[in-house]
Formats: sequence, C-alpha cells, structure tokens
Amino acid sequence: MPASIASLDTPVALIDVPQMQRNIQRMQQRMDNLGVRLRPHIKTSKCLPVVQAQIKAGASGVTVSTLKEAEHCFAEGIQDIFYAVAMAPGKLAQALTLKRKGCQLSILTDSLIAAQAIVDFGQQHDERFDVWIEIDCDGHRSGLRVEDESLVDIARILSEGGMQLCGVMTHAGSSYELDTPQALQALAEQERHLCVRAAQRIREAGLACPQVSIGSTPTALSALSLEGVTEVRAGVYVFFDLVMHNVGVCVADELALSVLTTVIGHQKDKGWVITDAGWMAMSRDRGTQRQQRDFGYGQVCTETGDWIDGALLSSANQEHGIITLSSIGDIDITARFPIGSRLRILPNHACATGAQFPDYRACDASGEVQTWSRLHGW
Amino acid sequence: MPASIASLDTPVALIDVPQMQRNIQRMQQRMDNLGVRLRPHIKTSKCLPVVQAQIKAGASGVTVSTLKEAEHCFAEGIQDIFYAVAMAPGKLAQALTLKRKGCQLSILTDSLIAAQAIVDFGQQHDERFDVWIEIDCDGHRSGLRVEDESLVDIARILSEGGMQLCGVMTHAGSSYELDTPQALQALAEQERHLCVRAAQRIREAGLACPQVSIGSTPTALSALSLEGVTEVRAGVYVFFDLVMHNVGVCVADELALSVLTTVIGHQKDKGWVITDAGWMAMSRDRGTQRQQRDFGYGQVCTETGDWIDGALLSSANQEHGIITLSSIGDIDITARFPIGSRLRILPNHACATGAQFPDYRACDASGEVQTWSRLHGW
Repeated sequence: MPASIASLDTPVALIDVPQMQRNIQRMQQRMDNLGVRLRPHIKTSKCLPVVQAQIKAGASGVTVSTLKEAEHCFAEGIQDIFYAVAMAPGKLAQALTLKRKGCQLSILTDSLIAAQAIVDFGQQHDERFDVWIEIDCDGHRSGLRVEDESLVDIARILSEGGMQLCGVMTHAGSSYELDTPQALQALAEQERHLCVRAAQRIREAGLACPQVSIGSTPTALSALSLEGVTEVRAGVYVFFDLVMHNVGVCVADELALSVLTTVIGHQKDKGWVITDAGWMAMSRDRGTQRQQRDFGYGQVCTETGDWIDGALLSSANQEHGIITLSSIGDIDITARFPIGSRLRILPNHACATGAQFPDYRACDASGEVQTWSRLHGW
Repeated sequence: MPASIASLDTPVALIDVPQMQRNIQRMQQRMDNLGVRLRPHIKTSKCLPVVQAQIKAGASGVTVSTLKEAEHCFAEGIQDIFYAVAMAPGKLAQALTLKRKGCQLSILTDSLIAAQAIVDFGQQHDERFDVWIEIDCDGHRSGLRVEDESLVDIARILSEGGMQLCGVMTHAGSSYELDTPQALQALAEQERHLCVRAAQRIREAGLACPQVSIGSTPTALSALSLEGVTEVRAGVYVFFDLVMHNVGVCVADELALSVLTTVIGHQKDKGWVITDAGWMAMSRDRGTQRQQRDFGYGQVCTETGDWIDGALLSSANQEHGIITLSSIGDIDITARFPIGSRLRILPNHACATGAQFPDYRACDASGEVQTWSRLHGW
C-alpha cells in the first residue's frame, strides 16, 4: 500500500510534487523564452528525482556545490556537471578521477595562483580541465571584478597551459537582499552586463571565451534581457521558500517544501503551541530576519498546507518548536491546536531545511507519498 | 596506514579526542562529587564512540532527543534510555516496539491529555510505560510550573492507570543566556529547588516519585548543591563550543570540536579570506549573536588548533565562508592565508555543527584519525 501523509512520522520534509513541477516549468519556460540554457543548481534539493524532473523539463547539465554532488550525479548518468565553487588545489585529484571516468566536469577559478595550480596539475596528469573564471558582479562573495587586470592573465594562463577555458560565470547573490521588481531588474542587468563585459575583455585579448553563465533565482526571474548570456544557473526556484517570498519572486502557493510536524504540548498562559519541529528540523536559518517580514523559524500552515495567518514558529530548540499567534483573542490554543494534531511549517530557506533530513517525502497529486533520498555531507 | 589530519578532505568535523576525554572526566567527577548519577544527553554527538566514552567514564544510561537515537543506542547495547521530549501520542507505537524488545525506555509528559493517551495506549497493549513528568523551572520551553494544579493529577492518572512514574525532570535552558558565576549558581539552585519541590508535591499526595532529574551543561557545572536530585542530564559539555565559552563554563582550550577547512580564495581589497566551510559545514547557528562576544559563524584557528586572535568566520554562504580579521594592518592576507592552506573553525554550537556532517574524524593524541559515524534524521 502506498504511503499517505497521514501515515508519516514527524518531523518530516514534504515535497508538494505538482507544485515543484510547476516551479520547474515556470523557470524552464522563462529560460526558453529568453533563449538561454538552464543549468539548475542542485545544491537546493541534492535529490536525484528532483534533478531528473528538471532535466526532463529541458534543463541541460547541472551545477553542483560539492564534488560529492558531482560524483553522485555522474553515477546516475548525468554527464555535464559544473562544480561552481572555486577549485581548491587539494581537490584536483578528486576532479581528475571523475574526468577519467568520463565525466564532463567543469571547474572554477578566480585567481592566478589557483589557475596555475590547475594548469600544473593538468599537465602533470596529461589532463585538459574545463575551467570557468568567476566574476564578481555585486561585491557579494568571490570572483574577479570585471576590470581586474588579472582577468585576462588568468584566461591566458589557462589557455596557454593547455586547459579548456569554458567561459566566465557570476552569481548575483546580493539579489536575496532586494524586494522590488525595479531593484531586481537592475541587478539582473548588472549581472548580465558585467559578465558579458568580462567575456568581451577576454575575447578582445584574442582568447576564446565561448560561454557566459549567470544566475540566481531572483535575477533569473527578473531579467528583461539575457543578451550575450549562454546559460543561467539557479537553484532554489525548484522549491521556493519564505526568503524568496519576501524577495517577491514567488507567491505563497508556490512554496513546494514544508516540514510536517506534530503538536506535543502547550504553554497556555503564554499562548505557546509546542511542536516536534525544532531547529534540527527547520535548520537554524533565519534568512527572513533582516527582510521586510520576519517569519521566525517558519510560517505555520494546516496539515493540508493552508497558511494560518499570524501563526509563526517563532522560536526553536533542538527538537522543540514554539508556535505563537499574532493575536490570540479568545482562542483556546489547546482546543485549536490539540496535542497530536499536525501542521506544516514553511521554511525560511529551502536549501538549509532540506539539509536537515536524510530524505524527502514526495507527495503527488493523488496524495501518494514516495521517499526520495538526498545527499548529506561532502 | 592510519589517516592523519593532513590527509583529510575538507570541510570535515574534527574531534580532539584527548580534550573530549578531559571534558567527560570533568563532568563525571563533578557529578560523582555531588553524589548524583550522570545521564548524558547524546543529542550533541549522536555518535556511539562518544557515548561509549561517557559510559566508560561512569555515566549511567543516556538521554535522547529522538526515538531514532533511542533505537540506535539500544541496538548497540545501551539499555537505560530516557527520551526527554514530550511524548506525542502518535509515537507511542514506536516506543512500544522498543520496550517489547527489552529496552528500558522511559518517556516524558507535561499534560493531562498526553498522560491519558499514554495510559490508554499502555492499557490497550498491556504495557507499563516508565514515565517522567516535565517541570518548567525557568519559563524557557515546556513543562508544568511547580505549583500547577494538574501536576499531581498527572502523577495520579499515570499511577492509577498502571504506568510507572519515574519521577520529575526539568531543564534550565535559559542558562544559555547567562554569563556570570553568580547568575548561573542562582539558576542552578532554582532548577534544583523547583524540581525537588515538584517531587515533594507528588509525594505529599501519597504517590511515589522516586527520581528527580535536572540538567543543562551550564547549571550542571555551576550548582553548589544537588540535594534531593538523583540524576543530571547534560549534553554539550562533551565538546563545548563558543556559546558555552561565552556563558563562562569552559575555557578556549576545552573546545573539542572544530571544522577543518581549506582557503579557496581572497578578496584582497576587502581583507576577505574565502574558505570551503560555509554554513552547510558550520550550520546556520548564530548562538553567540546575542551574547557578550559575537563570534560570527566561528572562531578561526590554525590547522593545529591555536586561536588566531581577531579572525572570525564572519559570514557564510552555503559552501563559502568568509573570514575577516579585526585588524589587518600591513598583513598581506594572500600570503598569510594562502590558497590551499588549512584552518580550523570553532563552532558557535556543537550540536548544530555536528549535525551537518555524516561523521566525525576523531583525532587521538598521536595524531591518528578515525572516522566515527553519527546519526542523521529521525
């Protein structure tokens, strides 16, 4: 007999599969319309059936955040894998092993030193690594500024050293801090423009720079033009979450990941409902804390997924979550949320909450639930 | 050939085993001197070799935060297990299975409704559950206030319903918010006094209440007297962490858990050193944010574990950590922290950071490293 939500032990991470499919379609169609390929970032789900649904919908290749994700994808038949974190020299042997098995793995650098290490290692092992150069488009994290004088030098070191320069890539991570369409469009254009400009600089130096890869979920959903861009990487759109809701790129109904929880007690005087989803289930991510609307550790919904206005998981211990209501009024919380009753909590950040669970429970339109395992660790 | 720290891929969670053993000895000796039994909370490590070291040093039974931890411990030969989260009626079947296999499992309640559900289920299955009643000693989370009129009623429901009332328990979780010996001693005394008083109330009603169980690492290390208490539960003392350091119950050298990381880049203009330990490795726990000293996502140390003053993992993306220095001066960060060099990061909260990893690497006094797996999920 197939499992149903009612049969699940709590806490558990639930995927609303029909909604996930709609999220996948939405992004894929947008990328198709803009004429670029979509290379989804699988760090959000780390889950093969999710990735396969993305590929089936038209995605081409994947982006990964760890070499373990790369190994896992390759073992499952995915060839074209971009490890989009600056390559540490000590990880080159692991990348080499993947390449030698036939994986079309590409790697990333943003420094002369690391680029030279890739060249040296590649030459030593007679391997032509596929390498991207990372551009910093918004001061958010890693990458070279587009006018950095070492940009062309790195491209030259790689090319002359016998490596394959795939192109340039960037990630407008600061998009998570925005919340108006105007600001998002402007950042998306900045991301596009600066990355295309970086490619031009390399090309003007007489070197090939075939690809321009950009992406974050908010900018991918906001860009008006992607001229000059060849591919977009985005991850969290597959589930969306409360941070994305605050950014303004999804509506409440589009959130496809939640945590199913059971009421285990109350502190009636304080209006607290205590659940078995604490921070071990939700993660410690408080991504909405500095946004326009702070959802605590999550938005509380009914077991079937309807938002309960003003009900938040406002604090969390390891295995205890505390729900509070914005206005209690005459509500008897012990009757409204009795011990043993079940709720769903929408997370701040799907990438962080998913990581707390060894697997998802994927619920289809008929209410049938399958177990989808996910990767953990490095 | 046994592994060494130098051979480990990063990021990885390292246990300094000699320091862990000293932490275990310190707590065990204190409890021995105070004349109570120590029932360590294994939710910190979720790791059998750690728990076995605690038992070998004199601990008696374990405390768990999930039934999965209970099942795991029982499968490994540990009999006396206290599941110290209020029992959801829906989990009684799982508890029953454990009991039927011979596990000496005890469970917890803080309400008439849940107590009645335990009695009903126990009678239905002809099983005498061992049950504790949770007391709220500091308004922190769950439990009955000591003068709550339902306290004795719950004890009576359980006893008259054929269950075994083990005793009363409490957890002074608010101790994490304190940072002076005086305040900690006062809270420890409050925790002791109120829990003993709750037991007295039950005894005065003519019911047996054999045990009084209290504990949190800060109060366990601060209590001057544990008169009337039979056992102490504490967890994080086994590793300690920066939150405990701020609370003032451990010194820098006592932190036994760290994350080994590799430098993968720089933003020289900003003084940033970028590492492969992001929030996926450290967790999103920002427990020191509201303490006297905010350590960001962690304190940076050399590869051998020496604190680098003023160096913090000040921000984190999923697989990127950004280290900043409180004063850069004339330091060339690319030379001081070159790409490929390795550092250790001490975490805010050992329970949260450990959970990010499928296993620990346990390093003994000779530098030999073993892999110790840990539980994940529910």
